Amino acid sequence: MEEKKGITKRSEDYNEWYQDIVLKAQLADYSPVKGCMVILPNGYRIWEKMQSALDKMFKETGHKNAYFPIFIPLSFLSKEAAHVEGFAKECAVVTHHRLGAVEGGGIGPTPDSLLEEPLIVRPTSETIMYSMYSKWIKSYRDLPLLLNQWANVVRWEMRTRLFLRTTEFLWQEGHTAHATHEDSYKEVMRILDIYARFSEEWMAVPVFKGVKSDSEKFAGALQTTCIEAMMQDGKALQAGTSHDLGQNFAKAFNVRFQNEKGDWEYCWQTSWGVSTRLIGSLIMSHSDDKGLIVPPKLAPIHFVIVPIYRSDEQKNEVFSRCNEILSNLKNCGFEVEIDKRENLSPGFKFNDWEMKGVPVRIEIGPKDIEKGICQFAPRISLDGVEREKVPKIEIPLSSIAIRGREILDEVQNALYKRCLNFRDTNTFEIDSYEEFKQRIEGGGFFWAYYCGDSKCEEKLKEETKATLRLIPFEEEECSKKECFICKGKAKAKGLWARAY
Amino acid sequence: MEEKKGITKRSEDYNEWYQDIVLKAQLADYSPVKGCMVILPNGYRIWEKMQSALDKMFKETGHKNAYFPIFIPLSFLSKEAAHVEGFAKECAVVTHHRLGAVEGGGIGPTPDSLLEEPLIVRPTSETIMYSMYSKWIKSYRDLPLLLNQWANVVRWEMRTRLFLRTTEFLWQEGHTAHATHEDSYKEVMRILDIYARFSEEWMAVPVFKGVKSDSEKFAGALQTTCIEAMMQDGKALQAGTSHDLGQNFAKAFNVRFQNEKGDWEYCWQTSWGVSTRLIGSLIMSHSDDKGLIVPPKLAPIHFVIVPIYRSDEQKNEVFSRCNEILSNLKNCGFEVEIDKRENLSPGFKFNDWEMKGVPVRIEIGPKDIEKGICQFAPRISLDGVEREKVPKIEIPLSSIAIRGREILDEVQNALYKRCLNFRDTNTFEIDSYEEFKQRIEGGGFFWAYYCGDSKCEEKLKEETKATLRLIPFEEEECSKKECFICKGKAKAKGLWARAY
Repeated sequence: MEEKKGITKRSEDYNEWYQDIVLKAQLADYSPVKGCMVILPNGYRIWEKMQSALDKMFKETGHKNAYFPIFIPLSFLSKEAAHVEGFAKECAVVTHHRLGAVEGGGIGPTPDSLLEEPLIVRPTSETIMYSMYSKWIKSYRDLPLLLNQWANVVRWEMRTRLFLRTTEFLWQEGHTAHATHEDSYKEVMRILDIYARFSEEWMAVPVFKGVKSDSEKFAGALQTTCIEAMMQDGKALQAGTSHDLGQNFAKAFNVRFQNEKGDWEYCWQTSWGVSTRLIGSLIMSHSDDKGLIVPPKLAPIHFVIVPIYRSDEQKNEVFSRCNEILSNLKNCGFEVEIDKRENLSPGFKFNDWEMKGVPVRIEIGPKDIEKGICQFAPRISLDGVEREKVPKIEIPLSSIAIRGREILDEVQNALYKRCLNFRDTNTFEIDSYEEFKQRIEGGGFFWAYYCGDSKCEEKLKEETKATLRLIPFEEEECSKKECFICKGKAKAKGLWARAY
Repeated sequence: MEEKKGITKRSEDYNEWYQDIVLKAQLADYSPVKGCMVILPNGYRIWEKMQSALDKMFKETGHKNAYFPIFIPLSFLSKEAAHVEGFAKECAVVTHHRLGAVEGGGIGPTPDSLLEEPLIVRPTSETIMYSMYSKWIKSYRDLPLLLNQWANVVRWEMRTRLFLRTTEFLWQEGHTAHATHEDSYKEVMRILDIYARFSEEWMAVPVFKGVKSDSEKFAGALQTTCIEAMMQDGKALQAGTSHDLGQNFAKAFNVRFQNEKGDWEYCWQTSWGVSTRLIGSLIMSHSDDKGLIVPPKLAPIHFVIVPIYRSDEQKNEVFSRCNEILSNLKNCGFEVEIDKRENLSPGFKFNDWEMKGVPVRIEIGPKDIEKGICQFAPRISLDGVEREKVPKIEIPLSSIAIRGREILDEVQNALYKRCLNFRDTNTFEIDSYEEFKQRIEGGGFFWAYYCGDSKCEEKLKEETKATLRLIPFEEEECSKKECFICKGKAKAKGLWARAY
C-alpha cells in the first residue's frame, strides 16, 4: 500500500499530523466516493476490539442485538418535527430502483422506476425502529425492551475528516422502551456510565460526563447526556451520547403499553450511540510525532518481535528463538508478529513499528541469547512522560509471558495517566469572558458559570468558535455567581471549549 | 412481541410453515419498508454465531477485515460490462443529498441537492474495492491481497421472502488479488472448502460442491463455484459462492503489479460471499412441525431449564436446584436460561421452547431431586429419526456439564445424519427427460448428463422451473453418454433441481 515519507510534527500542523498518522499507519484511506472513507485492516481491527468490549457490556446489562432496515420512508422521518428538522440537510435520498439506458445516451436511473415515496438512507434509526416497537409492545410485561444494533449510517457532510466526520460511518445505536421515566432515565445513565468506563478503561482516555444544553441536544430528545474528551491540541471531542427521549417519539409513533390496571400509557424511551469516530479520538489522544499509539487493550497486535543478526548462522539461531517467543506469547492469548523482512535494517524496522503503534517491541540478537534475555521496548515510557528515547527493559526468556502481561498493563496505565495529566493541566476555571477569548486560542477546557440562555452560547460561539460542551451532573450552588458572558444571574456551571 | 397461534404443517403448505416458524420463533419480522425485514434478537444471535465461526476460518487462512463505502458511483458500476448488466435491474439509486420544502407543499428531496453523478447503494462491492486495489497494489510484494468485509447490501427485489430473498441483506464479501491464475484458483477452492466445512460442521447441512454453468455464473466472473444444499421440500438452496474473476475486473479497474522482472501484469482476482440467507437454509433444513430446530453449535441458547413444582415449598427447593444447574452449565461456557414464568403449565413451556428450537430442555421436579437426577429432553431423537415423542434421558445432577456437552454433540451429529439421509434418499440418477418432468414435481436432486448448451438449460427451466445447480468438479467419462434433454453428445454430468 502507498506510503508518504515522514509524519508532520504536532507542533507544526496538528491537522496534518493527524492525517499523516491515519494514512501512514494504514488505518483508513480516502475513497473515490465524496465524503466516504475506506477503513483499512489496521483501523478495522481496532473497531472490532472496540465492538467486542462494548458488546459484552451491553449484553451484560440485558441488551440484545437486532437489525433494522437501512432505508427509512420519508414520511416516517417526518413524524417527529424536531427530528426531521435536525437531519433534513444531511440526508442521502433514494428515488429510483433500476438502472437502464436513458435519454441522451448512457445509463442512469430509469424514469419508470421512480419510487412513490423516496427512501432515506438512515442517518439514525429512531423512526424505523419505533414504528416496529409500536407493533410489538402491548403490555407492561413487554417492557423494558432493550435493543441495540451495529450498523452503518449516512449523514451527508460537506467538510469531512477521516474517522472524525465522514458521510458514512459505522456505529452502534441502542434503542430502549420503558414503563416509567424513572426507569428510562436510569437507562440513560447506565449507558453513559458504560461509555465513560469504556473510554477510560479500554481507550485510556479520561472523560467528563454531563448534559448538553438545549441548543446542542439530539433532534427530538428531552435531554442529551454525553462524555467529552480532550485531544492533544486542547480541543474537545464528544465521545458518546445517551439520550433521554421522554415520550416524544412514543407519541409520534404510538408506542404504547397497557399498565397493570389495564390503562394505555405511552412508553418512555432512550437512544444512545458511539461510532468509528472513537478511533479518531484514540489516535488524537495518544499518538506522538513518531506515529500512532494504541492502548494495549485495543491494539491489533500486542508485540512485534524484531530479530537482530549479521551472519546466516546467527540468523538461524535468532529466528529459532523468535519462533519460540512467538508461540510462547500466542499460547497465552497475545497477538504477535515477527518482522522477518530481509534487506531492512533493525533501525528502519523499529521506526516502522513505532509508527504503526504496536505497544511493545521485542528485540533479540546473539548477545541477548547468550545472556538468556531479550529486550522489551515499550512504545511509551512507563512513567507516562513523553521522551525521545524510551528506556528498554531486559527480560529473561523464561518469564516473557508473565512480564509481557505486566508491561502491557503498565503501558495501558501510563497512557491513561499521561492523558489525564494533560487534561488536568489544560482545564481551567475562568470568570472573565475577555480572558477566555484570549486563552481559548491556546486550547483547553474552561469551567465557567453561565445564565442558561442560548443567546449567550450563540454569542460565544460566533466570537470564539467555542461551544458549551456540557453541564456537569453535580449541581453547584451558583446563586451568587454571574454569567461570564452577559454578567446576568448564573444558572449553572458549564464546560467550554472548541470541539471537533 | 406479537404471536400467531399454531404452526402450519410442512405437508400442508411448506411455504406457510416456513413463514410461521420465522415469525413464531421470533427470528425476523416484516418491516414497513418494501422488501426489507427486521432481524430479531433470536435470528440475529444465530447470525452472530455464524459470523464468529466464519470470521475465525477466514482469519486463520490469512484474510483481514476492512470496510468500504456503501455508495458506488454509477460510472464505476458501469466499467465492467457484464457486471452492470447483471445488476442494473435491482439497484437502489441515490440522486439527492438534502430534504426541504418542495413545490406543491410537504417535504422532499430539494432540486438543488441533485447529485452530479447518481450513487448506487452497493449490490456487491467489486467495483468500489478494486478501484482502491488499483491504487494500493504496485508490486508482486503487495500480493496476495486478501480482504473481507462484513456489510449490508441492497438488491431491489419484487418478490421477497424472509431471509431467503430480501431487498437488503447482511453478508460477508471476500475480495482477493493474486499474481497468477494458479494462485487465485487455489483461493477460490480454499474458500469453497471453508463454506462447505462451515455448512456441514456448524450448520449440520450437507452440501454438494461444483461449478455453475455460464448462464448461472456471477456477472463478470470467469467461473462461479458454489455449494448447494437440499431443503426438506426437495428444493435446492445455493448456500455460498466463490468466484474466479480471472482478470476481467483487473482490466476494467487497472489493477496491476510489477513482477520480479519489473514488467507490469494484471492481477488475478476472486470474490466470494455468504449471507443471512444461510439462516433461511438452516431453518428449512432442520425444523419440524413443532417449530424451529437449531444445531447446538449455532443455537442462541443451548439449554433451557424448566422447573416443575406444585407447592411453594417445592418451588423454593426446585428453583434453588435450577440455579445450581444454571451456574454449573454457565461456568462451562454454555448459554442457559431458566423459565421462571408463573401461571404457565410445564406442558405449555415445553411446547414453547420446542417451537423456539432450543437443543436441550432440562426438566427438574421434586421426584428428580429425590433421585439426584434431572431429565434431559433433546429437541430431536438422538438416532436422527423424526418422532412425535422424543425419549427423555435421566442425568445425575453430578454429571450435568459433561453429559450436557456429550448430548449437544449427539444432537449436532443426529441433525447432520438426518439431513444427509434425507438428501441421499431424494437424490437420483436419471436419463429420461420425460421421467424428469414428472418426478421433479415431487422435489429432489437429479444427476443427469447434458450437452453443455445453454439452450437446453433454458428449455428445461421453462418447462420444469428447474435449473442446473452445478457441475461437479470430478470430471466423468461421458463420451458415450447423451444429453438427457436434446439427446446430443453429452459434455458433463449436472445436478438438476428446483431452487430457492
